[in-house]
Amino acid sequence: MKTISENRCFGGTQGVYSHDSAATNCEMTFGLFLPEEAKHIPVPVLWYLSGLTCTHENAMTKAGAQAWAAEYGVALVFPDTSPRGDGVANDEAYDLGQGAGFYVNATQDPWAPHFKMWDYVAEELPALLGDNFALDMERQAITGHSMGGHGALTLAMNLPGRFTSVSAFAPIANPTESDWGQKQFGAYLGSDRSTWAKHDATLLMREKGFDGPVLIDQGGSDNFLDLLKPEALAEAIMAKRQDGIFRMQQGYDHSYFFVSSFMEDHVSFHAEYLFA
Amino acid sequence: MKTISENRCFGGTQGVYSHDSAATNCEMTFGLFLPEEAKHIPVPVLWYLSGLTCTHENAMTKAGAQAWAAEYGVALVFPDTSPRGDGVANDEAYDLGQGAGFYVNATQDPWAPHFKMWDYVAEELPALLGDNFALDMERQAITGHSMGGHGALTLAMNLPGRFTSVSAFAPIANPTESDWGQKQFGAYLGSDRSTWAKHDATLLMREKGFDGPVLIDQGGSDNFLDLLKPEALAEAIMAKRQDGIFRMQQGYDHSYFFVSSFMEDHVSFHAEYLFA
Repeated sequence: MKTISENRCFGGTQGVYSHDSAATNCEMTFGLFLPEEAKHIPVPVLWYLSGLTCTHENAMTKAGAQAWAAEYGVALVFPDTSPRGDGVANDEAYDLGQGAGFYVNATQDPWAPHFKMWDYVAEELPALLGDNFALDMERQAITGHSMGGHGALTLAMNLPGRFTSVSAFAPIANPTESDWGQKQFGAYLGSDRSTWAKHDATLLMREKGFDGPVLIDQGGSDNFLDLLKPEALAEAIMAKRQDGIFRMQQGYDHSYFFVSSFMEDHVSFHAEYLFA
Repeated sequence: MKTISENRCFGGTQGVYSHDSAATNCEMTFGLFLPEEAKHIPVPVLWYLSGLTCTHENAMTKAGAQAWAAEYGVALVFPDTSPRGDGVANDEAYDLGQGAGFYVNATQDPWAPHFKMWDYVAEELPALLGDNFALDMERQAITGHSMGGHGALTLAMNLPGRFTSVSAFAPIANPTESDWGQKQFGAYLGSDRSTWAKHDATLLMREKGFDGPVLIDQGGSDNFLDLLKPEALAEAIMAKRQDGIFRMQQGYDHSYFFVSSFMEDHVSFHAEYLFA
């Protein structure tokens, strides 16, 4: 593991690190914020999964999460959104290939050799973090934005017991019914739609739900509402009688101005359960 | 108008009054909490509509709303849920007739002569209140529980400009598709379902929405979830991109223990807009 940078930040440290990943078969970079408490004791972990076109860096610099993570004494992990590099397959579209891993394990060519973002985020990176930093991996929570909200919700529901709580900002909520989903699942997973279901938050909510609290914020003036399909997930949460809150925030769009506006709520939401 | 009782309460006055109603053609009783500020200036009004089997008294004594209304300087109105008296039609069932007005104007016998709860709550009682108390009727908000949540939502959406904000606790959310609705609308309004639509919060949300913020709380362990149909309204709110929050509160039932647990949130929600 290489240290790319470490910056003092809200009394703690915002670091950027890279390592050779077995899951994605390339070098991966991630951000990690450690609050001051981590100098003394292992701290709980809040994952933040980013959206289309993002690297590890966007949320780290624009979401404003460190202020609240510092206040509560929680670490923040910012993984990249896909494998990267010259030897890694790509596509000219912004929503396929590098920057658009969709948090799945690709089974189809040309994606299969590197696009194993599920294994990377669910298995390899947690193990690396637990081995190298003062983190209490028994206390993890997860959030994300857009494609990352999709990732957060699908990881949380597919890994019961892993996360105390899950939240999302404007998640891709029902990708099997959206052009943000059908295109990518078809490319990465193939045409057999039975392999898609475990990567659709609405379908997972209907089928199994989440064993903990859920918080979703969606901007009411989001340009991508037709692709995100918040109504499908809201219906599923309430039909499931899931412990959950779904908020339509009028006037907000899909940007980090939206994410940062509600970040305090999300960090405090997770902190309540991480420290319960 | 007769004063039934007045009790000092959180620095203000909890009153109960009765009057001869032209709308319902019988004597009606209501509760009114006036905070201390009303001794000096007209105060904003928060309506609380009650549920099946309730009178004006249930919420007045069990919802715990006065504490927060006093803190914010807001009046609370607690109307009865139906006409009452020996000359008023009734039914042996708890969910039809007296105590079950459903906030509609009945057109069918034997209900039509007295069951005009829509006109009573939307027109007659507001006029009476404005004439007799230190209330600023230009600043009104509305909430309610169960059948009263249905009433609050349908009044708010059918009377644009009247209410700054609307909230509900476990509302009957989609009565045209529920045994809490079909039975009563059939009895009060007749079999022509086109007359039912303006009394269904989900249908109204889909059609027109509300020109202001909406807050809904629903208990996850409510025995009546199948009758309340929260998922239909949640879907409609989000599909409409309505400024709204829908919260599934795990472990809470349909009782006033649930209502009182979240009353502070609802009063502070409305106060934000009443004093904007």
